Amino acid sequence: MNSFCHYRVDLGARSYDISIEAGGLDRVGEAMRGAVGDAGRCLIVTNTVVAPLYLSRVEASLSAAGWQSVSLILPDGESSKTVANWSLVLDALMESKLARNEPVVALGGGVIGDMAGFAAACYRRGVPLVQVPTTLLSQVDSSVGGKTAVNHPHGKNMIGAFYQPKLVWIDPLVLTTLDGRQLRAGLAEVIKYGLIRDAAFAERLKVLMPDLLQLRSDAIAEVIHTSCRHKAEVVMRDEREAGERALLNLGHTFGHAIEAITRYRRYLHGEGVAIGMRMAARLSEQVGLAPAGLEQQVVALLQAAELPVAVPSFTAAQWLDAMGHDKKSVGERLRLVLMRGVGRAQIVDSVGKAEITTLLDSF
Amino acid sequence: MNSFCHYRVDLGARSYDISIEAGGLDRVGEAMRGAVGDAGRCLIVTNTVVAPLYLSRVEASLSAAGWQSVSLILPDGESSKTVANWSLVLDALMESKLARNEPVVALGGGVIGDMAGFAAACYRRGVPLVQVPTTLLSQVDSSVGGKTAVNHPHGKNMIGAFYQPKLVWIDPLVLTTLDGRQLRAGLAEVIKYGLIRDAAFAERLKVLMPDLLQLRSDAIAEVIHTSCRHKAEVVMRDEREAGERALLNLGHTFGHAIEAITRYRRYLHGEGVAIGMRMAARLSEQVGLAPAGLEQQVVALLQAAELPVAVPSFTAAQWLDAMGHDKKSVGERLRLVLMRGVGRAQIVDSVGKAEITTLLDSF
Repeated sequence: MNSFCHYRVDLGARSYDISIEAGGLDRVGEAMRGAVGDAGRCLIVTNTVVAPLYLSRVEASLSAAGWQSVSLILPDGESSKTVANWSLVLDALMESKLARNEPVVALGGGVIGDMAGFAAACYRRGVPLVQVPTTLLSQVDSSVGGKTAVNHPHGKNMIGAFYQPKLVWIDPLVLTTLDGRQLRAGLAEVIKYGLIRDAAFAERLKVLMPDLLQLRSDAIAEVIHTSCRHKAEVVMRDEREAGERALLNLGHTFGHAIEAITRYRRYLHGEGVAIGMRMAARLSEQVGLAPAGLEQQVVALLQAAELPVAVPSFTAAQWLDAMGHDKKSVGERLRLVLMRGVGRAQIVDSVGKAEITTLLDSF
Repeated sequence: MNSFCHYRVDLGARSYDISIEAGGLDRVGEAMRGAVGDAGRCLIVTNTVVAPLYLSRVEASLSAAGWQSVSLILPDGESSKTVANWSLVLDALMESKLARNEPVVALGGGVIGDMAGFAAACYRRGVPLVQVPTTLLSQVDSSVGGKTAVNHPHGKNMIGAFYQPKLVWIDPLVLTTLDGRQLRAGLAEVIKYGLIRDAAFAERLKVLMPDLLQLRSDAIAEVIHTSCRHKAEVVMRDEREAGERALLNLGHTFGHAIEAITRYRRYLHGEGVAIGMRMAARLSEQVGLAPAGLEQQVVALLQAAELPVAVPSFTAAQWLDAMGHDKKSVGERLRLVLMRGVGRAQIVDSVGKAEITTLLDSF
């Protein structure tokens, strides 16, 4: 496995590189000059967990490359991904009077990336964005592809923009400080790529899982590489989710409902997705799309990653209301991502409430 | 002058029509089906002034064409163009659970168009937007071109998105109920097209002005047509304001400062722009770009439209602070739109604070 690697996300005028480099955190200032242009001012957005660990290194790297940075430290956690905190990022941008060509640096996990990204998309109708993801989930998924958003009290990621970064700068070594629960949550999105489009990768994950849970660097680097390649391929083919990109939402309609009903406080995003993928697997069997046994395969993989698979006992009304708010819905029928088997996801438009109720009753 | 006319704004996948039709308000439901697709649900966003005049006609037209509409009525005026009110639009969208393919209809002036447009851009990362502008300013300028935004307490339009509508549906007859001050404010943006890129139109406006102030329908239709044509041409060449489109900001850096310093309560946008164009004209003379006499020509045209031209007496610090927040700034130097003469605007990057101070002192 190379210790340094680039993927080019080719989107015409919105193209950018994903760089994966062990120890790269100390080179972000230099890389940003290459991706954004002459060093000027920038705003770093990070959180209370990441700041004590990595902010000073990033500031030093930026300063060495000629950048003048201001930092904004927000609370940690999905429950902080709100319009109110997004508004604080905009206040900080206004306060520092950043110009149109001066970047926002998102240093953190998916919450920081989504919120800082959406602020960068909106401030002056768009300033450059650099993603420096510090969790496994954000390194393998959310930092790539340009989806930015905040949550509405009644639905996850309901307020946002498609807004591509100028650079995604991944240092796998920052994961050494990652909390075990956060690591496992990130593995849910890694498993997702296997379930959607790469059965061989799903097989490989079974072998790698013990090493991944131990944060062995070779195994971690391998799954970051494979995941970023899958994400980049899908995004290049369908940037704005007119079709194929929706496959990446496997497990997310159920998962978002789980997160929203528990007000983003009980489950990490990846945990919701893990349970959601299990539910999607059972529903795929139930509607006759997948042969019997799929759910068992999915559960085995999730359990190998020590992820939760128990479906929480909400009322049917809670489920349906939360799922009705999901972005994937089209009219009365739900649009869901189901599976014909491992590695073969498919969008299904025709799922009715009765089928969902049957599914919920079965748990 | 035709009573019905289309302009096509050709922007690839984001192309759309501007339709100008006397009495067209009663046909908006049908037109929306053509531009957006099968009739479903939609959200009408309007304000307390427009709703009693035109909302029921729009609702009737939508209903006749098969649309189910919900309406949200917001306060009137630039001071209501806030994150808080934008958030109310998003709450209404969540409440009505609009799907990704169901449109937002902005029925009102520039404030409603900007705010509803920005909400449409962000809800589910973008739903279709239909602009039904009801003021002269929004018919000739803000409804076309995809700029949406809300104001930050420290700067106008600082939070927003480039987001093109699916249709701009203009009925000049709705202007018959327009307040005289609003009409004159709209004329400032009409005059702007003449000053920027069409000296013959500026001449023609001198002739038309008495008829325009009387709301004579032929004259009004003529300036809407010419203005929309200019706006569409510029937007097609430079959708995201990388270059030429910035010319449309003539007078706006000064104008936005005037609006912001007075908290969006004392001047209408067009009034700020009128005063700002006068200031830009004097500065153009001062820096030797334009021959002496330009300011006088500009003032004469603005006064013919009964627009204010007196520069308010803020302190230099107030001016510079407000202008420093303007989106048109690049680093320490201001980027301003100046004129070489009537019909010949030019972007100037090199204006320093000393030149601004000299200008301010001269009033």
